[in-house]
Amino acid sequence: MDRIGVGLVGTGYMGKCHALAWNAVAPVFGDVPRPRLVHLAEANLPLAEKRAAEFGFEKATGDWRDLIDDPEIDVVSITTPNKFHAPMAIAALEAGKHVWCEKPMAPSLAEAEAMAKAAEGSGRVAMLGYNYIQNPMVRHIRKLLSEGAIGAVNHVRVEMDEDFMADADTPFAARNEAANGYGALDDFAVHPLSILQTLFGNMTRVLCDMDKPYADRPIPDGTRRAVENYDAASVLFHLRDGISGVLMVNRAAWGRKGRIALQIFGSRGSILYDQERMNELQLYQAAGRESEQGFRTILAAPLHPPYDRFIPAPGHGLGFNELKIIECRQLVGRILGENTLGIGFEDGLEIERAVHAMARSFQRGRWEVVV
Amino acid sequence: MDRIGVGLVGTGYMGKCHALAWNAVAPVFGDVPRPRLVHLAEANLPLAEKRAAEFGFEKATGDWRDLIDDPEIDVVSITTPNKFHAPMAIAALEAGKHVWCEKPMAPSLAEAEAMAKAAEGSGRVAMLGYNYIQNPMVRHIRKLLSEGAIGAVNHVRVEMDEDFMADADTPFAARNEAANGYGALDDFAVHPLSILQTLFGNMTRVLCDMDKPYADRPIPDGTRRAVENYDAASVLFHLRDGISGVLMVNRAAWGRKGRIALQIFGSRGSILYDQERMNELQLYQAAGRESEQGFRTILAAPLHPPYDRFIPAPGHGLGFNELKIIECRQLVGRILGENTLGIGFEDGLEIERAVHAMARSFQRGRWEVVV
Amino acid sequence: MDRIGVGLVGTGYMGKCHALAWNAVAPVFGDVPRPRLVHLAEANLPLAEKRAAEFGFEKATGDWRDLIDDPEIDVVSITTPNKFHAPMAIAALEAGKHVWCEKPMAPSLAEAEAMAKAAEGSGRVAMLGYNYIQNPMVRHIRKLLSEGAIGAVNHVRVEMDEDFMADADTPFAARNEAANGYGALDDFAVHPLSILQTLFGNMTRVLCDMDKPYADRPIPDGTRRAVENYDAASVLFHLRDGISGVLMVNRAAWGRKGRIALQIFGSRGSILYDQERMNELQLYQAAGRESEQGFRTILAAPLHPPYDRFIPAPGHGLGFNELKIIECRQLVGRILGENTLGIGFEDGLEIERAVHAMARSFQRGRWEVVV
Amino acid sequence: MDRIGVGLVGTGYMGKCHALAWNAVAPVFGDVPRPRLVHLAEANLPLAEKRAAEFGFEKATGDWRDLIDDPEIDVVSITTPNKFHAPMAIAALEAGKHVWCEKPMAPSLAEAEAMAKAAEGSGRVAMLGYNYIQNPMVRHIRKLLSEGAIGAVNHVRVEMDEDFMADADTPFAARNEAANGYGALDDFAVHPLSILQTLFGNMTRVLCDMDKPYADRPIPDGTRRAVENYDAASVLFHLRDGISGVLMVNRAAWGRKGRIALQIFGSRGSILYDQERMNELQLYQAAGRESEQGFRTILAAPLHPPYDRFIPAPGHGLGFNELKIIECRQLVGRILGENTLGIGFEDGLEIERAVHAMARSFQRGRWEVVV
Repeated sequence: MDRIGVGLVGTGYMGKCHALAWNAVAPVFGDVPRPRLVHLAEANLPLAEKRAAEFGFEKATGDWRDLIDDPEIDVVSITTPNKFHAPMAIAALEAGKHVWCEKPMAPSLAEAEAMAKAAEGSGRVAMLGYNYIQNPMVRHIRKLLSEGAIGAVNHVRVEMDEDFMADADTPFAARNEAANGYGALDDFAVHPLSILQTLFGNMTRVLCDMDKPYADRPIPDGTRRAVENYDAASVLFHLRDGISGVLMVNRAAWGRKGRIALQIFGSRGSILYDQERMNELQLYQAAGRESEQGFRTILAAPLHPPYDRFIPAPGHGLGFNELKIIECRQLVGRILGENTLGIGFEDGLEIERAVHAMARSFQRGRWEVVV
Repeated sequence: MDRIGVGLVGTGYMGKCHALAWNAVAPVFGDVPRPRLVHLAEANLPLAEKRAAEFGFEKATGDWRDLIDDPEIDVVSITTPNKFHAPMAIAALEAGKHVWCEKPMAPSLAEAEAMAKAAEGSGRVAMLGYNYIQNPMVRHIRKLLSEGAIGAVNHVRVEMDEDFMADADTPFAARNEAANGYGALDDFAVHPLSILQTLFGNMTRVLCDMDKPYADRPIPDGTRRAVENYDAASVLFHLRDGISGVLMVNRAAWGRKGRIALQIFGSRGSILYDQERMNELQLYQAAGRESEQGFRTILAAPLHPPYDRFIPAPGHGLGFNELKIIECRQLVGRILGENTLGIGFEDGLEIERAVHAMARSFQRGRWEVVV
Repeated sequence: MDRIGVGLVGTGYMGKCHALAWNAVAPVFGDVPRPRLVHLAEANLPLAEKRAAEFGFEKATGDWRDLIDDPEIDVVSITTPNKFHAPMAIAALEAGKHVWCEKPMAPSLAEAEAMAKAAEGSGRVAMLGYNYIQNPMVRHIRKLLSEGAIGAVNHVRVEMDEDFMADADTPFAARNEAANGYGALDDFAVHPLSILQTLFGNMTRVLCDMDKPYADRPIPDGTRRAVENYDAASVLFHLRDGISGVLMVNRAAWGRKGRIALQIFGSRGSILYDQERMNELQLYQAAGRESEQGFRTILAAPLHPPYDRFIPAPGHGLGFNELKIIECRQLVGRILGENTLGIGFEDGLEIERAVHAMARSFQRGRWEVVV
Repeated sequence: MDRIGVGLVGTGYMGKCHALAWNAVAPVFGDVPRPRLVHLAEANLPLAEKRAAEFGFEKATGDWRDLIDDPEIDVVSITTPNKFHAPMAIAALEAGKHVWCEKPMAPSLAEAEAMAKAAEGSGRVAMLGYNYIQNPMVRHIRKLLSEGAIGAVNHVRVEMDEDFMADADTPFAARNEAANGYGALDDFAVHPLSILQTLFGNMTRVLCDMDKPYADRPIPDGTRRAVENYDAASVLFHLRDGISGVLMVNRAAWGRKGRIALQIFGSRGSILYDQERMNELQLYQAAGRESEQGFRTILAAPLHPPYDRFIPAPGHGLGFNELKIIECRQLVGRILGENTLGIGFEDGLEIERAVHAMARSFQRGRWEVVV
């Protein structure tokens, strides 16, 4: 395999992100062969052809199974709605393809388990699209923690808030149906959980409360329909090694647009991070003369790899979409046998298990063990 | 009563704050008679005399009971250690004095109840020193909420964090003994609870987790003694009217010095506040053209009373100690028959009840009703 | 002189500030005798009596000369409009009183010179009310600079902006008349100049541009009158020791309320400060591992004296008015023979000279030497 | 011309940026044909071939003249060192190619004039790489100004600061030689000037001071060599329509990494922007109830085009390199006959003229007219 052959299923926002990443990974990093963009699948052929032309793919199809059968394809990007993840990923793995699948894994825990099982014996790379962990600032936090920059961590708080459901008159939609999950818990919690897992490992116990800010939402006939799940969730949790914490998610938080705010407290310092200012982190170290101690605002810089592959000067900033390019490089590296940072199907399953334990905890009003 | 006669018990930090407030209340506000600083009590006469001279009090005593018996005194400021609050306040009330007592009320719920009972039938003003609620910014939040500036509130988060217990090698002290309470819960939680009560009323249900970042602390003999209570607590709670929320307190949070961070989410906007920047609040309103919506940083100004009594220009800033002057004006107003903002003994008792319910919840691992 | 006898002339905002400071200096600092508030002068006797009662002064008068003649008075606080500063200060000094006079010294350079001359041979303390320099954060910057914390300073920028003249329809007032000075230059520039002088010494050369955002302003007859001076000024300057810099002042800067923003660049680091967040400073040091370098936000704390005299805990914040208490302590100390921080009449004259050189520079369109 | 044929000269950081933009412009925008990456030139053939493979170009050459002669090329990206800009751009234009040339135009004003002249009669698009103006936030500021959101602008301040020359021991380099320009003035000032031109048009008068923080820098033989130009410059300026302002640039400002801070003051409000937080702007409007006025922090969002082409959700952030993709879309649009935002050679020449007027002003110590 000289150049990796790529198939892309789906061309919504995430599909576009994958396409941009496949186009950019070689120019940005300069240390992997430029992938061959082989085959693109969409719901129908005309759309597939249009996107293939835009994205630079050679072939187009209206049937994703054509990618599974295409011998020129080594890896399949799956960016379709969640309910298609399991069948597509399992079929691709069974056909001997590597898989890059968007998160979350699947609507049900059973399907996620089936995906993990399919990956396990496949000998193929199966990675999930948890791109927040690829931010050079998050990676630098990981490095700082591993070096003991703030001593032993004892407490963590993480908030993920947006406001796309904050208006009581936003029409009732699929995401308000119980059939589509618990609400903010599935929608959001997986993101901070991916960061927590990357930094600290998995949760052991959780205690969850959920909130429904609006009892009903308008429907086209002019009346309102009862909302079936929860736009906010608050979770007390324990991580291994005795770290305690609080996870808060809210998709009805006016003014919050892309907030993932992390507060990490250790025995020798603290670290703060907020995704809305994703090119900064704040570090407090209980060191040096006390009258000059304070939170240091550290701007993203070439010293925080792989920022250096994008820009040679500090303080110029990466964008959200560019995290997907970093993720793509991790995937390619893993295919090439490198040990890279990324959340594989097995780790992804742990995240899904934590979410389901939270939901159980809310229903039962008590602490639940994550299994 | 032309000029109010003041007695002061205790001259530690809070005693000094009371003294500064009694000296400043008339010059600052200009609408109440200058109080007469009559009598000051400390643990011994020489110290009492020194402080009386500094603070401008006419008489000094080494026995606080002299103040109770002094007919020239109308109101007693109680700023002694917590364990003395109940006997002093009750004695003062029984002697027909008004009482201004520092918080928290008392180490035990029974004593707090006795204080509330003593106040109830007394016909005297009995107010607690919850000064954070007097900040013009907090008062303005209260006004904004009552005007519906952010619609109906549905969720609240509040954090109170400092770092004076963040060093594992800070020596074992009284505050680490179980006999002195639960830890951060008593130490801190009463402050955010006073703000929540002022803005929203009392809690109905709580679920609490507590954390002990360090198992032991050094003692003088060179060994270490087991810590008996908890430096951090995290609480899920419900307020009346269906508002849910999370309360987080941590006295081992490196880098946090006087943080009381409030996030209030409503149906039409959000409000943020942080005590470390006590002369600012942030307001987001889902109004006007969407492309210009954002959190507005509002600086304290004469339009946020009673800031105007201190400074005629905006953006110049009040200090923490000056909140006590505002509180003093509330107390004086209440004595003069005005309806002012302040936490009386009855409301204070509700705060104590919430704290004790949190502690019970932690011990039992389940939701507790606040009673 | 056991207790210093105080006279106060004027009870507007600054008069009130002086009164609060005289009431608070002994309780706050605990190391100087409580001053005797002897005599208060206002424009008429009834007002003087009302304020004397509020502020705690023993005697009241409608004629400020009574204070000059009062043998019980050791020091006179002068807080009247600028045009009265010179006659009052000179009379007081000639009568053997110490003087605490609000800034700026006087409308004309000649009067300021007369004041400095009167002080020079008097053997009395003559101090100006430049309170911004008393902020523990500004004092800490001074300490950091003297310790070489950012190496040798090479460049400084300072901005002072407010918005009370930002509305084009704010009525024409005395401050818009040329007879009352150059505009923002007198109104504002003296404040940042007091800070620059405290940190670096005096200016040597200046080059000034001035701006008139609005040509005219409304007058009561419904028409508009031409504005005669300048609401904004921008100045390039050189300090001794080769430090260059830029001074910018604007009283028509919408949204700025009390901004005095300082940027100090040195050979090993930088310091930032903004009066609107007066309890913080930011320090960048080019030291330690580069990947963790950043501006550190340092919160005011007991380690930044004399914050410790106000509050024993960090991060709780002083207010603008409290800076006057610190200034009062400097004045008292100087009277008692201590070497304290404050701007005497001689140093104040240097500030006035810089302002007048700036005005000359604007008129002549060239660099002017400060003399 | 169905698909635009692209030639790229140079593959340093800016060459990479151009390559990424050419790869991404079609997937991101979806409204222009995917360009054909035809030919890439570098200093030698092996490097050219390596980069062509990475960047997706079909042909490679060690001689940039091959691109000029290649009939399959419609547009040439010039990203070589500044001294090559003029000969390459002029040759390309003369060969009938469109040109996308990095800024600044050329070391001498004469060369810049020659470039502008070559472009003038060519009938071809000749655009400069001023990408900061493409930021959706800067574009939104432009929109706000044109709508009168802050009334009539009267004063502007802009600072551009970095710290790559802040260390006195950074070795003497080409950029410290007078032969390479004035220093920070050429290096930096063109960037804020491009923003000022985009928002307000050109400067009319300037007055400039320059600073040399370090007299000399180390050279390899262990001694030090005198620095020949200026790492900082401060400029008073006037724009047409009576707007005054201050421009400050400093490449020796410790802690500043990519700061371009803009303060725009108008008759009804103010706008603030800082490139280090390039996904935010701050807007103050003197409107609505005064007690809630404040600077609003507006996060980049789909409502600020063309952010929407990158990300469908607000607050997720674009990166510095992505501005080049927007710029590329402007260039392509202009080639296709659209009226797009970009700085052509004629406008670029105005920027160069302003820089040279500043240098003259410094040498002569007086105001200079920009011609």
